[in-house]
Amino acid sequence: MGNKIEIMPLGGVGEFGMNCLGIRYSGEMIIVDAGMGFPEETPYGVDISIPNFDVLEDYADELTGLFLTHGHEDHIGSVPYLLRRFDLPVYGSRLTLAFVERKLEEHGIADEIELNRVEAGSNVSIGSFDVEFIHASHSLVDCFSLAVETPLGTVIHTGDYKIDESPVIGRPYDLEALRARGEKGVLALLADSTNATVPGRTPSEKDVIPALDEIFGEAEGRLIVTTFSSSIHRLQVVFDLAKVHGRRVCVLGRSMKQNVELAEELGFLNIDPETEIGLGESRQLNDDEVVYLVTGSQGEVRAVMWNLATQSFKGLQVSEGDTVVLSARIIPGNEKRISKMIGAIYRRGGNIIEEKRRLIHVSGHASQDDIRILTQAAQPQYLVPIHGEYRMLFRHREFAKNHLGFEEDRVKLVENGDILELTGETATVVDSNEIGKIFIGDNGSGEIGLETVRERRKIGYSGVISLVITIDRNSGELVADPLISIKGVSGVDALNGTLEVARQSVSEAFKEVSRQQASDSEWLKEHLRIHLKRHLQSEVGARPVIIPEIVEV
Amino acid sequence: MGNKIEIMPLGGVGEFGMNCLGIRYSGEMIIVDAGMGFPEETPYGVDISIPNFDVLEDYADELTGLFLTHGHEDHIGSVPYLLRRFDLPVYGSRLTLAFVERKLEEHGIADEIELNRVEAGSNVSIGSFDVEFIHASHSLVDCFSLAVETPLGTVIHTGDYKIDESPVIGRPYDLEALRARGEKGVLALLADSTNATVPGRTPSEKDVIPALDEIFGEAEGRLIVTTFSSSIHRLQVVFDLAKVHGRRVCVLGRSMKQNVELAEELGFLNIDPETEIGLGESRQLNDDEVVYLVTGSQGEVRAVMWNLATQSFKGLQVSEGDTVVLSARIIPGNEKRISKMIGAIYRRGGNIIEEKRRLIHVSGHASQDDIRILTQAAQPQYLVPIHGEYRMLFRHREFAKNHLGFEEDRVKLVENGDILELTGETATVVDSNEIGKIFIGDNGSGEIGLETVRERRKIGYSGVISLVITIDRNSGELVADPLISIKGVSGVDALNGTLEVARQSVSEAFKEVSRQQASDSEWLKEHLRIHLKRHLQSEVGARPVIIPEIVEV
Repeated sequence: MGNKIEIMPLGGVGEFGMNCLGIRYSGEMIIVDAGMGFPEETPYGVDISIPNFDVLEDYADELTGLFLTHGHEDHIGSVPYLLRRFDLPVYGSRLTLAFVERKLEEHGIADEIELNRVEAGSNVSIGSFDVEFIHASHSLVDCFSLAVETPLGTVIHTGDYKIDESPVIGRPYDLEALRARGEKGVLALLADSTNATVPGRTPSEKDVIPALDEIFGEAEGRLIVTTFSSSIHRLQVVFDLAKVHGRRVCVLGRSMKQNVELAEELGFLNIDPETEIGLGESRQLNDDEVVYLVTGSQGEVRAVMWNLATQSFKGLQVSEGDTVVLSARIIPGNEKRISKMIGAIYRRGGNIIEEKRRLIHVSGHASQDDIRILTQAAQPQYLVPIHGEYRMLFRHREFAKNHLGFEEDRVKLVENGDILELTGETATVVDSNEIGKIFIGDNGSGEIGLETVRERRKIGYSGVISLVITIDRNSGELVADPLISIKGVSGVDALNGTLEVARQSVSEAFKEVSRQQASDSEWLKEHLRIHLKRHLQSEVGARPVIIPEIVEV
Repeated sequence: MGNKIEIMPLGGVGEFGMNCLGIRYSGEMIIVDAGMGFPEETPYGVDISIPNFDVLEDYADELTGLFLTHGHEDHIGSVPYLLRRFDLPVYGSRLTLAFVERKLEEHGIADEIELNRVEAGSNVSIGSFDVEFIHASHSLVDCFSLAVETPLGTVIHTGDYKIDESPVIGRPYDLEALRARGEKGVLALLADSTNATVPGRTPSEKDVIPALDEIFGEAEGRLIVTTFSSSIHRLQVVFDLAKVHGRRVCVLGRSMKQNVELAEELGFLNIDPETEIGLGESRQLNDDEVVYLVTGSQGEVRAVMWNLATQSFKGLQVSEGDTVVLSARIIPGNEKRISKMIGAIYRRGGNIIEEKRRLIHVSGHASQDDIRILTQAAQPQYLVPIHGEYRMLFRHREFAKNHLGFEEDRVKLVENGDILELTGETATVVDSNEIGKIFIGDNGSGEIGLETVRERRKIGYSGVISLVITIDRNSGELVADPLISIKGVSGVDALNGTLEVARQSVSEAFKEVSRQQASDSEWLKEHLRIHLKRHLQSEVGARPVIIPEIVEV
C-alpha cells in the first residue's frame, strides 16, 4: 500500500467511445469519465453500449468519486448506469454537470446523486487524491484535463483536447497549469489519441469563421446550418455571423434548442436577444433575413435536417434558393444516408456547402503538433495513449518515440481491463481483466445480453420457423398434422407448395420414430428440428432458425 | 417509329452500382451493361442486388443485344440474371467477357450464351443500331465507351472512365475517336458522374509509381501489398517495382490469383516468369526478397489480408518488420473493420502505409477536368449524367452549366425507370416506371423478397416468440397450458419468472373468450397474439414478433 498507483481503463482504449478509467492508490479509487459507445449492433435493437462495470465490484468499498472531464456522450453517457450501482459523488464543470443532470433525471435518480460543480483551476481533495481541474480547449466548452496528485506522484488525464489558441468561447488550453505540473514532476500522462494519426496542428474553433462568413455573404436565399448540437463554439459563430449579415436565427430540433438554452443560461453562449427568433416569426421574414440552425448533420432520419430535405418539418422544407451548410464531419457509417440527404436537397433546388476544401468544420482533438505541445508541457515520465482505436494508440506511441524523444519503455500501451502499475521507477501491466461491454436496448428496454444479440443476428439473417407437433400422450401417435409457420424465410411458402412438402416430410420423419423415442419430448423436438432443417436446406436452400414445440394431449 | 430514341436507365442512376440502361429506336432495343449493387441489407442474408428486369418484359421481342463497357461487378454482376430471362447475344472486350464467362459458368449457363469478343475501334451493326467500341481508360483495363449510332443520331455511353494520358497498361483514352464522333454530331452523351464532385484531374494510374517505389525502397522486411484484384494496372506496378527492388512476388487469395492468371493469359499483365513465385518458395527467401500481393484491402474477414493481420493464412502472419501497403480506397462502410485490421497489424509489430498524403491509390473515375475534356471532345447536344447517387448527378449538371456552357435544358437528369425521349430537337422524360431492385441471397439461395427482408429486419430487431394454444375442438376448452418459446427476446426468460407470468396471462385471456369466438381460430390467434404483445410490452418492455399457433384436438 502506498507504493504504487494503478491505472485501470474500463473503456475507450482500443475502441472509440465508452471512455472510463480507474485510478487507484492505497486502497482508494477514483473513476475518470463514464461514457457510452455507439455499437454496430443497432439492427438488433441495441441503442448504446456501456462498459461492464462488474470489475468494479471488487473495489466497491474503495471507490471515492467520479470525475468528469467534459460533457460529450462518450464521456458521460454511462454515468447513470455507473451511479445506479455505485453511490459516488460526482465532480465536473457546470456545463458537464448540467448535461449529467438531464441524464439522471431521465433515469429518475437525480435526487440521489451528489453533484459537485467545480471550476477550472480549483482542486478537490478526496483521501489520498488531490485532483486539479485544468482548463482544456475542445470542440465542447467547459472542459477539463485532470491532474491527479497522489503521494507517489501525479497522473495527468487530458480528457479530450486540442491546443486551441483562439477558441470562440473561453480561454485557450491552460498550458501554464500543465507546465507548472510538469516542472513539479508528472509520473504519467494519459493522453487523447483520437487524432494521433493526423500531422500538424488542429485548426482553432475560430478558423471556420472566414469560410462561413463568405458563405453567409454569398447566400441570397435562406440559410440552413446544421452541426452537432454540442458544438457550442460553432453555435456562437453562427449567431455572430447572422448578426453581422443582418439575419435572425431560428433554432430547430430538440437537442439544439436545449443546448442553446442551457449554454446561454450558463453564460457560454452570448446571444443578442434580437437575433434569436421563433419559427412563426421566421416565416414572416424575407429569405435573406433568416438562418435556420438545425439538428441532423449526420442525416439522422428523425432530426430536422433530414425532414427539411426529404419531407418537411413543421411545414418548412428545403426549396429553390436555399443554402444548406453541413458544418460537421461525416462520422463513418453515415455516408450513404448523408449522401441521400444531399441528393434530396439538390432535387429541391437547394444549394449544399459540402466542399471539403472550405474550412467549415474543425476537429476537437489534438493532432500531432498539439500532442507535441501538450507532452512537452507535461514532461511525463510515462506516456499512456488513451481514447482511440488501437491504430491511433499505436500511432500515438510511434509519434512519441520518433518525434518526442520517448524511449519505447516510457510509452505504455494498455487495453481495457489491464492494470498498469506505476511504482515511481517502473510501469508494468500486472494484470488483465476481461471487461467487455453491455448493450442497452432502445426505448428504455434495458440491458440486452450478448446471447440475445447473437440470436437476433441469426434469425434476422435467415428467418425463423415455428414447428408444432401434436401427439397423443397415450398412443404416441400424431394427433394432428404438424403446423409450420414462417417469418422472414425465403423460398418457403404456401403458394409454391414447399410448405406442404415440408409438413409432409416432418410427418414422414415422425413415423420413423419409435414409441420410446417419442416419449422423450426433448429428444423428439431436436430430432424433428434437425430433420426439417436438412429438408429445407436441401429442398429450397433455406436455413431458418427452427423453434420446435411438442404438444402432448 | 424512327423519329425518336428512347433512353431507359434500369439501374445506376441515383444510386451506386447496378448500372444498366436500355437504348431503344424504332422497335429495337439494346441493353448497355447489367451490373450488381451492394445493398445495406447484408445483415438480412442479402448478398447483392440486381435491377428488376420485369420492365423489359414489355420489350422482350425488341431486345437485340447486351453491350458491356467493362468487367467491374457494378457493370456485369447481373448479366447471368438478365440472360436467364432474355436470350441475347453479348458484346464486350476480351477481358470483360472472360469475367462474364466465369460468371455464366457459375450459373451453369455458359453454353447457352453467345459471347462476341470485340476490339476497341471496331463496330457492330444490329438492326438499326451501329455500335462503335471506343477505347476508354479506367482503373480496369480493356474498357470501352460506346458510340451508338442510329439513323436519328448518335448516343455516346462513356462507361466508367477517366482521361488517363499514361495508363500503366494500354493506350490513353481514345479522344480522337470521340472527337471524330463529336464532329459528325452527337445527340446525347450519357456520362459517368461518380467523381463529378471532385475538382481537377484524376491522377493517372502511373502516378502511384513514385510513392510505391519509395516505399519499396524503404522497406527492410517483407512487403505485403493489398489492392482490389481487378486493379490490373496496380498489379503490374507491383510486379514491376518488385523486379526493380530485387523482390519476388507471391500472389495470395483466390480472386487475386485468378485475375493475375487471366490478365497474364490475355496479355494485359506482363510478368517476368522469374518474378512470380509460390508460397512455398517465398518462405525460403529472406524477408527483403519478397512481396506478397494479397486480397482483402477492405478488411473482408474471409480475405487474405484480414487473416494475415489477425490470425494466419497458411501459416503466414504479419510480424515485426513487415510493411503493409493499403493501395486502395476505403469504401464507405468498411472504415471500422479496416481500422481494426490496421490495429491488429500494429499490434504484431507491422508497419502500415496508410498515409493519405502518399499517393498510393488513384481513382478510376473522371474528375471535373476529365469531364471537361471528354465533353468538349464529344460536343453533345444533350448531356445525361449517369452512374452515381443524385448528389453526383446534380453536381455533374451544375458543372456542365457553370463551366461547360450548357444551358439548363441541355442537361437531362433522369431516374431509374424514366424514359427519356430524344427526337433530334427535344429531349423529354415522357414516362416513368417504378423499377426497384431484387435482392439475391448468399450461397446461391436465390431471390429474397422485400417482404422477407422486412420480416427479417423486424425479428432481428426485437426477437421472436412462438405461442402455441391447444384447445379441444368439441368443448372449446384449453387442453394444455399455452407453450411459449423465445428467440432473441430480451427481458423474458424462464429464470426470472416472466415467462411463466406471460403464460398465465395468456391462459387468463383465453378464459375471457366466448366459445363462439374461440371457434374462429384466425380470430383467436390474433386476439391472443395482441394480448401477449401488450402484456410483454407493459411487463418487460419487450416487443417481439409473436407467431401464434392454435392446435385443435
